[in-house]
Amino acid sequence: MIGALLAGPVRVVNVGLAAFARDLAAHGAAVAQVDWTPPAGGNAALLSALSFLNNEKVDKANEDALKKILAAEPVLCDVRRAGELIPELDAARLVLHAGPPIEWARMCGPLKGAVCGAVVFEGWAGDLAAAEALAAGGGVQFAPNHHFGAVGPMTGITTRSMPLLVVENRAFGNRAVCALNEGLGKVMRFGGNDAEVLARLAWLRDEFGPLLGAALRASPVPLNPLIARGLAMGDEMHQRNVACSSLLMRILAPLLSRHSNDFDSLAKALEFMAGNDQFFLNFAMAMGKCILDPARGTPCSSIVTAMSRNGTDFGIRVAGLGEAWFTAPVEMPQGLYFPGYSAADANPDIGDSAILEAVGLGAFAMAAAPAVAGFVGAGGFADALAYTRAMSEIAVARNPKWGIPALEFAGTPAGIDVRRVVESGIAPAINTGIAHRLPGVGQVGAGLARAPLACFEQALVALAADAR
Amino acid sequence: MIGALLAGPVRVVNVGLAAFARDLAAHGAAVAQVDWTPPAGGNAALLSALSFLNNEKVDKANEDALKKILAAEPVLCDVRRAGELIPELDAARLVLHAGPPIEWARMCGPLKGAVCGAVVFEGWAGDLAAAEALAAGGGVQFAPNHHFGAVGPMTGITTRSMPLLVVENRAFGNRAVCALNEGLGKVMRFGGNDAEVLARLAWLRDEFGPLLGAALRASPVPLNPLIARGLAMGDEMHQRNVACSSLLMRILAPLLSRHSNDFDSLAKALEFMAGNDQFFLNFAMAMGKCILDPARGTPCSSIVTAMSRNGTDFGIRVAGLGEAWFTAPVEMPQGLYFPGYSAADANPDIGDSAILEAVGLGAFAMAAAPAVAGFVGAGGFADALAYTRAMSEIAVARNPKWGIPALEFAGTPAGIDVRRVVESGIAPAINTGIAHRLPGVGQVGAGLARAPLACFEQALVALAADAR
Repeated sequence: MIGALLAGPVRVVNVGLAAFARDLAAHGAAVAQVDWTPPAGGNAALLSALSFLNNEKVDKANEDALKKILAAEPVLCDVRRAGELIPELDAARLVLHAGPPIEWARMCGPLKGAVCGAVVFEGWAGDLAAAEALAAGGGVQFAPNHHFGAVGPMTGITTRSMPLLVVENRAFGNRAVCALNEGLGKVMRFGGNDAEVLARLAWLRDEFGPLLGAALRASPVPLNPLIARGLAMGDEMHQRNVACSSLLMRILAPLLSRHSNDFDSLAKALEFMAGNDQFFLNFAMAMGKCILDPARGTPCSSIVTAMSRNGTDFGIRVAGLGEAWFTAPVEMPQGLYFPGYSAADANPDIGDSAILEAVGLGAFAMAAAPAVAGFVGAGGFADALAYTRAMSEIAVARNPKWGIPALEFAGTPAGIDVRRVVESGIAPAINTGIAHRLPGVGQVGAGLARAPLACFEQALVALAADAR
Repeated sequence: MIGALLAGPVRVVNVGLAAFARDLAAHGAAVAQVDWTPPAGGNAALLSALSFLNNEKVDKANEDALKKILAAEPVLCDVRRAGELIPELDAARLVLHAGPPIEWARMCGPLKGAVCGAVVFEGWAGDLAAAEALAAGGGVQFAPNHHFGAVGPMTGITTRSMPLLVVENRAFGNRAVCALNEGLGKVMRFGGNDAEVLARLAWLRDEFGPLLGAALRASPVPLNPLIARGLAMGDEMHQRNVACSSLLMRILAPLLSRHSNDFDSLAKALEFMAGNDQFFLNFAMAMGKCILDPARGTPCSSIVTAMSRNGTDFGIRVAGLGEAWFTAPVEMPQGLYFPGYSAADANPDIGDSAILEAVGLGAFAMAAAPAVAGFVGAGGFADALAYTRAMSEIAVARNPKWGIPALEFAGTPAGIDVRRVVESGIAPAINTGIAHRLPGVGQVGAGLARAPLACFEQALVALAADAR
């Protein structure tokens, strides 16, 4: 990559440290800066693994994994009680959370807050203090959503009585589930746990979820065309979902009115959907998981099948390595804060929503959503294009079903290749909401996070070890 | 404008006829083609008018007119029976139509077809043959929508019992009205006039219109922010309205459910809105008119306040010349045809919808809507940018409220200046649907039309005569 536009004839080409070029330019020399770093940062073990894995067998395995990803036919088809969809939730005091596995003691503030709220919501404790004592004392089991075919945004708490939306991949028959988006303001996904939060969850459980489920069972909604339209309408489906939320509302409103028998309840449901630009986020997340899951377990493939964070650790899964997690400490998002908040209030990166970047949306599709670039503090239209171009350097292909208008309808990047990430040093970018670090406060901003390179380096070494 | 990208040092610069440059290039010469034509095509009378009008007085008048345009606050606030909003419709057998004034004999096929359908719909004749005899024999009066504060897409027929939507410009108190969009397929705006078309109009009159009116009277919808969002979501509001239609549906669905007392009727209303990506078009048109109307009658201003076509003539109005129309034969749109149709089936350009280009949307905002460029046969993303850039050359400013993401949120072109059109020879481009030339067939394609330069030349000469 040439780091400067060439305005005239180049007299000096500087490779590596930019300071030399700046010094020369300050003295009037015409300099072209080349942003070069050695592959894999020059690390010998990684270079050895890379050289071992840069072969046709891995390429072929990635082609197989990619074919499965691109063949997906995700269809939104149901909303049901979590315990009905995941029987383990009814069999024990089990709380599913975002990210790779983590025990209570290492959980961040918002995650602990959400756990306590859910414990009260399920009636396992009478108040938040009792809930905390129960959770800290081993009275609750924890597991990642990903271990049960689920995903959840931010804290991502899933317990037995919550209504979960279901997306089925009709090309393979697998399903993924996700809780319904609670809207803005104080919500459990940002660690909220007071009476207002629990009352909304009860309404989702008792009224909205059953109504939406009945409508979807009667009229399932194919998601590939919805995403294609959304990308042509400025969504990247992570921090911007206003197009898909509106398009889905347009599909659902007539269905809900056909399945309702109470005007007030119907109006509340429609007002709830209409009041939240991010309503579609959770549908997109379940879609991402059900698209990527069939690729999991493709022997030798270096394609990423999941990226996720629990607020303490960042974890990835790789197609050739099945269920294994490769984790590293999660990073802080860089972004813009709502009035009254600053980076000092921010919790580290959290949520299963990075499944969207894993499937080529979010920051990978930033070129489709220049308004998001401004929202997450990444710049303007030109910067949005640059993000998608950079992310396509670490992907093996483009998704022909999901075109981006500003790239003359070239597809979103598809299939993050662990080899390309380690070789280039380009860490996957993630558009993310920023939670307050204390439980119960909520969202304080939005920004960009990076997946830690260490996750990809570990996965690369494990892939090489597995193949030797 | 330099017609070729300069890939190397230029050795020949060719001005004017491109054939010379092509010949040179074919022989290996490095040629830069400059697309130069003399101002106003070298016409002495026009050059004299231009030179007379290129002064501070006209500039100042245009500033005044522009201020009025940019200060507009359009709010969608009602749907009512046409005769209630325009009493003249109840006082006589009056049929309003798109475009400048025209008598029956000169009307094109679709316009005649729509007139006959409306005459039957209003009960002034028992069938289409009797309706035609009545209209041809002078038993019906005709007038442009524009003479009664109205607009209508394509044939644009407005009669007494149709429900009209109302947009009020709250900065000035003026209102503009438009019939409701009938949806796709066989519709009166494309000259459709059979039982299916009339039954839908009856449903709009008896069920949908009154329900929508009640909801809007209780909760008016400001349109400036809706347009701003739509532009960031790929709409140009003429041939692409899917974002604004969806956003409006998201606002209206809860309101309709609060004002309905019949689930079946409500579901039909929601299904009707959900089934038509162009549902918002008619709202945008009334908005365009109520934004531009206050500028009409600004003395000496050369800004266009309306562009419209009746299928035979194209007409424009100019701020400094009040109610006068400047007309010329309408052109044929160039575009893409639906399967089974070709240019041989096409009716010339028709409809009041060019009010959208007059207000800076449609082809003027093509950069916001690259998908439209493909739909109307104008190319891809780069071509879409080029259209907006070209149209901004004939506009006096940009609208800061309506930013285009792909132009780093620069505003839509605002205020077409008759002087700039004549001087540059750049005719305003218009994104348009294409009607079949026979009555009753319907839409056969979509494309780009150009406003005839002759309209602007006449207006320029009239402005100069008026000012002398």
